[in-house]
Amino acid sequence: MSATKLTIPARKGLAVRVEKGRTFKIVNTHGSQVVDSWAFNADDMSEFMSMEHSRAGFRRLVSQIGDSYLTNRRRPILTVTDDTSPGRHDTLIAACDIYRYQGLGHQGHHDNCTDNLRDALASLNLKAPETPSPLNLFMNIPWEPNGELYWNEPMSLPGDAITFRAEMNVVAVFSTCPMDLMPINGKDCIIHDAEVVIGS
Amino acid sequence: MSATKLTIPARKGLAVRVEKGRTFKIVNTHGSQVVDSWAFNADDMSEFMSMEHSRAGFRRLVSQIGDSYLTNRRRPILTVTDDTSPGRHDTLIAACDIYRYQGLGHQGHHDNCTDNLRDALASLNLKAPETPSPLNLFMNIPWEPNGELYWNEPMSLPGDAITFRAEMNVVAVFSTCPMDLMPINGKDCIIHDAEVVIGS
Repeated sequence: MSATKLTIPARKGLAVRVEKGRTFKIVNTHGSQVVDSWAFNADDMSEFMSMEHSRAGFRRLVSQIGDSYLTNRRRPILTVTDDTSPGRHDTLIAACDIYRYQGLGHQGHHDNCTDNLRDALASLNLKAPETPSPLNLFMNIPWEPNGELYWNEPMSLPGDAITFRAEMNVVAVFSTCPMDLMPINGKDCIIHDAEVVIGS
Repeated sequence: MSATKLTIPARKGLAVRVEKGRTFKIVNTHGSQVVDSWAFNADDMSEFMSMEHSRAGFRRLVSQIGDSYLTNRRRPILTVTDDTSPGRHDTLIAACDIYRYQGLGHQGHHDNCTDNLRDALASLNLKAPETPSPLNLFMNIPWEPNGELYWNEPMSLPGDAITFRAEMNVVAVFSTCPMDLMPINGKDCIIHDAEVVIGS
């Protein structure tokens, strides 16, 4: 089966179906873009990738190549098969939402990953039962020995990519994080598109 | 108003209503018992304490005295006002559930914190819209600089207690974690009761 290349538009979301056993690659086209990611069991949206269950499974704050993310029923849903980035992907921090931007002083509408998840699923006539804590690809949240967390710029370079294998039929959702009030997407605070390549 | 002292039975859950501005203290009566904890907005159960939003708020893996836990709408719901334990409380790991015990080789029924949350809320004729990631009081999950996590025995001593102030009217739920297949509740793997004291 040939590869399908799709663009995640800047500041927006994209939902795709991926069959069990197929791989998909998220490419950080411009190098500095955080991509919030979710995965749902395509046959039962009440089962989904869960960061709190996944950390208990791979016993780390951040996954490595070969690790599987687990669902809220502790079944493998995505396995990391390759990663050409420095491997820094965040499992700790909530998706941004309108409350986050209001808290930072923004007034009125602001694109946000929580709404992008909802809108991307709606494009497939689907609805999530909740907003699961996201896997924030390329998001650089280092931790200190005393538990302090920092919001740093991504360590990834243009073209860096992470590849997953779907362990069940999934609906995968991606959002190019529109946070432009702090330099989590690079110090220029410019939001970029990214790419998903669904492979064999 | 006088204090109310309640027991969280060993292996089971307890749900209590706490008015805005009142404090409540969770006492580790026997010293080694993990207590999974949740808090919901009593006026709207769809708003609840969220570990992924709270970590973004206090910018640490583990709270300190004075830190506020946030809801999924990023509003303060509980503030830590005192802590006589070593302060090691976990925000990273999912509540145990039947899938966890099955994965460890257990067959048949096993008490678990996810069911305890459901049953405790049912005792107040309430239902959670989801199982939020819990605040695991006294649970000792140290992290390494490389992100590795460990499941260690609690560092707390008999009588150690953490105190919270409710920042809105809340329904608080506690579960004495029934994990007895690994020494997260102490090396004897015996599950104990604990105590909640609702103060002024």
